[in-house]
Amino acid sequence: MTIDTHSAPTAEQLDAIRAIVGPKGIVEGDDATPFLSERRNRWQGATPLVVAPASPQEVSEVVKICAKHKIAITPQGGNTGLVGGQIPLGNEILLSLKRLRNIRAVEPLNNSMTLDAGLTLAEAQEIAHEAGRFFPLSIGSEGTCQIGGVISTNAGGVNVLRYGNMRDLVLGIEAVLPNGEIWNSLKRLRKNNTGYDLKQLLIGGEGTLGIVTGAVLKLFPLPAQKVTICAGLDNTDNVVKLLSLAQAATGGNVSSFELMYRLCIDLTLKHIPNTRDPLNARHPVYVLAEFTSSAPTDAGLRESVEALLAEALEKNIIRDATIAENEAQAQNLWHIRHSVSEATSGEGLGARHDVSVSTNDIPAFIEKANTAVKKIVPTARFVTFGHIGDGNIHYNILAEEGADKHALDDQRETIEQAVYDVIGDFDGSISAEHGIGRHRRDDLAARKSPVEMEMMRAIKKALDPQGIMNPGKML
Amino acid sequence: MTIDTHSAPTAEQLDAIRAIVGPKGIVEGDDATPFLSERRNRWQGATPLVVAPASPQEVSEVVKICAKHKIAITPQGGNTGLVGGQIPLGNEILLSLKRLRNIRAVEPLNNSMTLDAGLTLAEAQEIAHEAGRFFPLSIGSEGTCQIGGVISTNAGGVNVLRYGNMRDLVLGIEAVLPNGEIWNSLKRLRKNNTGYDLKQLLIGGEGTLGIVTGAVLKLFPLPAQKVTICAGLDNTDNVVKLLSLAQAATGGNVSSFELMYRLCIDLTLKHIPNTRDPLNARHPVYVLAEFTSSAPTDAGLRESVEALLAEALEKNIIRDATIAENEAQAQNLWHIRHSVSEATSGEGLGARHDVSVSTNDIPAFIEKANTAVKKIVPTARFVTFGHIGDGNIHYNILAEEGADKHALDDQRETIEQAVYDVIGDFDGSISAEHGIGRHRRDDLAARKSPVEMEMMRAIKKALDPQGIMNPGKML
Repeated sequence: MTIDTHSAPTAEQLDAIRAIVGPKGIVEGDDATPFLSERRNRWQGATPLVVAPASPQEVSEVVKICAKHKIAITPQGGNTGLVGGQIPLGNEILLSLKRLRNIRAVEPLNNSMTLDAGLTLAEAQEIAHEAGRFFPLSIGSEGTCQIGGVISTNAGGVNVLRYGNMRDLVLGIEAVLPNGEIWNSLKRLRKNNTGYDLKQLLIGGEGTLGIVTGAVLKLFPLPAQKVTICAGLDNTDNVVKLLSLAQAATGGNVSSFELMYRLCIDLTLKHIPNTRDPLNARHPVYVLAEFTSSAPTDAGLRESVEALLAEALEKNIIRDATIAENEAQAQNLWHIRHSVSEATSGEGLGARHDVSVSTNDIPAFIEKANTAVKKIVPTARFVTFGHIGDGNIHYNILAEEGADKHALDDQRETIEQAVYDVIGDFDGSISAEHGIGRHRRDDLAARKSPVEMEMMRAIKKALDPQGIMNPGKML
Repeated sequence: MTIDTHSAPTAEQLDAIRAIVGPKGIVEGDDATPFLSERRNRWQGATPLVVAPASPQEVSEVVKICAKHKIAITPQGGNTGLVGGQIPLGNEILLSLKRLRNIRAVEPLNNSMTLDAGLTLAEAQEIAHEAGRFFPLSIGSEGTCQIGGVISTNAGGVNVLRYGNMRDLVLGIEAVLPNGEIWNSLKRLRKNNTGYDLKQLLIGGEGTLGIVTGAVLKLFPLPAQKVTICAGLDNTDNVVKLLSLAQAATGGNVSSFELMYRLCIDLTLKHIPNTRDPLNARHPVYVLAEFTSSAPTDAGLRESVEALLAEALEKNIIRDATIAENEAQAQNLWHIRHSVSEATSGEGLGARHDVSVSTNDIPAFIEKANTAVKKIVPTARFVTFGHIGDGNIHYNILAEEGADKHALDDQRETIEQAVYDVIGDFDGSISAEHGIGRHRRDDLAARKSPVEMEMMRAIKKALDPQGIMNPGKML
């Protein structure tokens, strides 16, 4: 099921594809270059043709030709993926969804909207907002990433704690299957127990089972109130305690609960302009939390949060805290959090992990992982942060201060495997948000249970018997 | 893939199964009778053996023998299903999960618990409560139905609007696959993008792809406050408007939003003891809604609901409303709602449907369906109620008042098909909660898109190539 089994398409076959989409649907020459590299420059792709169909029907016709001639396909959305899932390896045509941009329906009374796959996530948020509703998925790349890609990678982000991953926000999908048939399952229903919930296979399927061309997404009431806080804590145990306390004190109103170790703040202050220390004193660990309520008369949110912080101070769970007094202050806090990744890159390449464990296992995981990494790199620095409310840790390692950016290049693989070993001890996930793609493919095969790998392969074979959909990715 | 392809097991094969589970694991003679009929007495089953393994390991060993000899299996939980999915047709052994009753882990800091499949839903709620947490799934049969069955049928109930169906409440599962292997995917993670989310196939899979033996379930903060109301309205348009208003006014705090037409109230008053009219005057339509908040300091919930009702009265969306002043009053309101099904049975068998449409399509659906049914039975009475906040309507038809209980028996099939035709016009679901089982199997094949039926069959064949798992159900 690797790309090796697919030969390059002939000129005649490519002409047949060109004829379907017309000149507007072909990206050539220098214009094609941006489709073949990704933002971390980890992979440089190659393809015989970049094709951008204008409609699900055109996608279907292109895929039918590919199915007939056993031509492999790599679907691509906004090309923001971090694991190379969207980059063709050589003989696959690259099928971009960028021209599928119709708003098919917005139904506020059903709290749903039906969109083409090529609209960006930011556009989807805006469409919801214009209808007086909230679409909660929010990730750093939202201005560029597309709905189809967000579905195919089951994206997460900062609002998962309250609203779920993309999987939880999809009511229905439309997809072109590996045989070229259009599967219309654009259901707008909250309840539907009529057979296997097949859309779940394409959500997070990384384009290996079909190409998502449209979707029905869930909408929510607009948040009417928001309280953003930053707290300083002594250790990760207290972070978990604060989370539990926050959930008890404000119910379902914790939207975001983000962890940053002190080094994240230091690196951000060093590398990113317009950032300032969120609290007066230095603390080992910081929590950035956001509480939202969509009830217009719920004046109690701010009071609930104040009571929570008072209780946490009294119980020595936190050392200090600040509440953002306005949107500008809230944005300043978020600016730090959103800059950690860039600040880390400014310091060095290091080794990066996007892992998850059970929330109660977070302190033990971090301790055990730090110990394991220090055995390999005694001077390692830990840029540990993430969506801690979801058990999702961006666990990143840097060499000692002042070291060359590439100092850990030779040890990266050893570090990663050591971290994944610890993840295995806690029955965690080696890829919480970013997926498998090309980057973690071998790790997946090595670390997932043989029973489950066998099930995955059986399903891939059942739905894509020729293996033409995004070969060399995930499986 | 029907039962016809499986012959009866031999005495020797049955002895091999008996040897695995021992005398305690075999149910014989009169004791076996309750396993073979269900509460609506629609199907009388038959089986060569009722076997109740004591552990996932024993389930695995039994299934391995079945796989070896191509013996079919019908898994059974609490035997509360309404579509016959849990009743063997003849040659299948009946595999009861009732002896799998271990609490494997309760982790309040992770808001999760790991349970064996044979614990009842009510026990699961209680286990959560003892840990200071809330497990929200609630259905009429919760004292009897089991976690494994609730997962395999993706049960819904009264709290779906806020907390989702069972699918949304499962973090991980353990299952015995059709080849007898134990698939342990008891993940306690909120984020895990490592390949296809295979558990989604077994959730709502009705036992056709494997036997769920354990699960990790999500927990929530305990609701600290609750406000229950009943409102009288002129028509269904206003019901949808009230829902939208309620969501805007109280944010995510609408837990239940239930519709009852006046006839539901009349039949309940007539057939069920200890029920009283919820409002002074008669209204065409009633809404029973519950608002909950888990924030202890959220004193604003009651005020929000009062403001909502005042606004709805002023806008002529509702005609009258009552707020339950205590738990007893709230229970009285719920008693009416929970009794509608029994009251309907007291009046006649009629024709019953468990359907769903987009929330904004509810008024048009009811009008069009009523018209279609009246063409068949001009004197039909409509016992229309349901979880309207989820677009889920229990759309039930009775013959005219005083008619024989079996008056509609001959027309039932014609009525059902007419209602399903209307459901098709609205792209709705012919089974919102209850599933397919044996009852709606032919309807599914006739009404689901050929593309999707083909995908379902391909997956069934891939994971259960011998077709031994619950044959004759769903597919």
